[in-house]
Amino acid sequence: MKLDSSFYMGLVIQQAWKYQLLAFPNPAVGALVLKNGEILSLEAHKKAGSAHAELEALKYAYLNKNQNIHTKILEKLENPFEISNYLLEHCKDFFKTCEIFVSLEPCAHEGKTPSCAKLLANLKLKKVYIGTKDINSVASGGIKILNEAGVKTELGVMQKECEDLLYPFRCWNGDNKNFIFFKMAQRLNGSVKGGYISSQDSLKYVHKLRALLSVLVIGGNTFRLDKPSLDTRFLNLKDRKNPNVFVYTRKNKNDFDKNIKAFKIENRKIEFGKNLEEVFEKNKFIMIEGTYSLLEKTYKNIDLLLLVISPKMQTEAKSLLKKNLDFELLYMQKNKDDIFLWLKPN
Amino acid sequence: MKLDSSFYMGLVIQQAWKYQLLAFPNPAVGALVLKNGEILSLEAHKKAGSAHAELEALKYAYLNKNQNIHTKILEKLENPFEISNYLLEHCKDFFKTCEIFVSLEPCAHEGKTPSCAKLLANLKLKKVYIGTKDINSVASGGIKILNEAGVKTELGVMQKECEDLLYPFRCWNGDNKNFIFFKMAQRLNGSVKGGYISSQDSLKYVHKLRALLSVLVIGGNTFRLDKPSLDTRFLNLKDRKNPNVFVYTRKNKNDFDKNIKAFKIENRKIEFGKNLEEVFEKNKFIMIEGTYSLLEKTYKNIDLLLLVISPKMQTEAKSLLKKNLDFELLYMQKNKDDIFLWLKPN
Repeated sequence: MKLDSSFYMGLVIQQAWKYQLLAFPNPAVGALVLKNGEILSLEAHKKAGSAHAELEALKYAYLNKNQNIHTKILEKLENPFEISNYLLEHCKDFFKTCEIFVSLEPCAHEGKTPSCAKLLANLKLKKVYIGTKDINSVASGGIKILNEAGVKTELGVMQKECEDLLYPFRCWNGDNKNFIFFKMAQRLNGSVKGGYISSQDSLKYVHKLRALLSVLVIGGNTFRLDKPSLDTRFLNLKDRKNPNVFVYTRKNKNDFDKNIKAFKIENRKIEFGKNLEEVFEKNKFIMIEGTYSLLEKTYKNIDLLLLVISPKMQTEAKSLLKKNLDFELLYMQKNKDDIFLWLKPN
Repeated sequence: MKLDSSFYMGLVIQQAWKYQLLAFPNPAVGALVLKNGEILSLEAHKKAGSAHAELEALKYAYLNKNQNIHTKILEKLENPFEISNYLLEHCKDFFKTCEIFVSLEPCAHEGKTPSCAKLLANLKLKKVYIGTKDINSVASGGIKILNEAGVKTELGVMQKECEDLLYPFRCWNGDNKNFIFFKMAQRLNGSVKGGYISSQDSLKYVHKLRALLSVLVIGGNTFRLDKPSLDTRFLNLKDRKNPNVFVYTRKNKNDFDKNIKAFKIENRKIEFGKNLEEVFEKNKFIMIEGTYSLLEKTYKNIDLLLLVISPKMQTEAKSLLKKNLDFELLYMQKNKDDIFLWLKPN
């Protein structure tokens, strides 16, 4: 196996996909620090407001080689500005022999977090390998900052794969200004019937997504038959945030059983109707949960299908479609017992 | 991300799965060399008779840091004994600061290739991390050789994942003395109809497998309707070896169309019948190619299902089963456009 810059960027991409969508409205980004050829850290941006991937990678790279009574302070730091200040004050020489691999051009601007490009420039890293350019008008310009400070950069390492990783962000941050994804759980043979299909770990991931949504869209039939709560109960109390719901149906609220669990959830809006266009227009981060018939109806609208497959086959299989649907497989990962496929409609 | 021995063994396992089954009758094994924390090589055993994973990793580790007029010789060496001798003669001091990660205990015995354990002992590696033990009565004993030579070993790094990687080998090398796997190609929704489902890359992998088989089993209906050649035409001329075929059917040879392509292939035996038990007993490395009905019939006999999924959905979906089938997902990988799932029947 060739151990070139693509190899290291490949690790970065793998790490970043573990947190895909979870940093909304920020992009999924990963970073790896190499010092004299040794991998010192491999990190990702995990959540909006928390440290960017580069900052996490720098922090853990330093801690990897410096474990003493003083670095106990750094270990505990979570505030991005505090981490950044610590590194600038205490660790400057350390990074002069370090290279960093980042899937996205380091941000130029200072917002909820410090500018990663300025930090890397001040720490005088040996070289910065970058997957793809930031075209966000506010955050872009990182390469310029680095080069002006004399830091070498190499752009375009695994560019296609880094663009795939960035694709959801490009949607909600681009001209469309929103991101619509479909989440479907099924078994290997397309079977979708009956209770929980996915494992607890997969459900937890879906609940993390639900907590970030602008709106959750669900089909009227599923709403009527499954009586779902559509909540985030698998998360820790402090992380729970139950999404607003749009039920795609010709019926109205009074036609549905009052005992459907979703109605009991506080601080949530539930709307009913057929006008998906309007729902898509009004919202930024939209998950549709459903199975084949709703997928077929919304195929032309969605940016991505997250297909969660449980390694089982069951007698019932309602995967019949009226037309053929083609996808590009952007990425796949094993989530404990389940298979996660990230599919872009062709 | 924790950068411990499991991280490096994880890379080894990923690399080895790329060649799963292709080294038959040898096990799939991977190896990685680390020198002062830097990854110098990441290799796998690719083919029976060629260099073992450890030898490949040692060779490329040395070449990684030594590129000169003398090492041109090493670069070109493919014979395992010649590589081994070169390393012993020219590179001894180099490896004293190296650690190696191997998914399987290095072999003790000398056969078609030199003893990896003896080589690692003679090169005086700093430490050998081992995934799982070799229980093959001929090859085992590597750890003992290493320890007696004063080389430190650590056994059990990612043991479960290394056992999963080794599982096919454990079958054909164990009490059963054979390995029966089912290969099925389908689309995301379970659809299996019509011409080629998989991509060229996937077909090439399947043809590599076909060239190694003791026998290829196929259902009578598929044989009649698809008129397949069941050959290895996607391989280079020198690698082509067309498998013997067993057609699972109540009919006999004369009931089938003489123009079925498989009949035109030279140097192959085609048998017809219903006695799968006998076929399984007589053969060591058996691939069944088929779809849902044959899978259901042979589910209790097979050791593994290799499910190749194309990222498409089609209107036709014949994935109906009479009973539920459960699997453990041993591994998954992206093979260009397709999804490879390695599933062990529960």
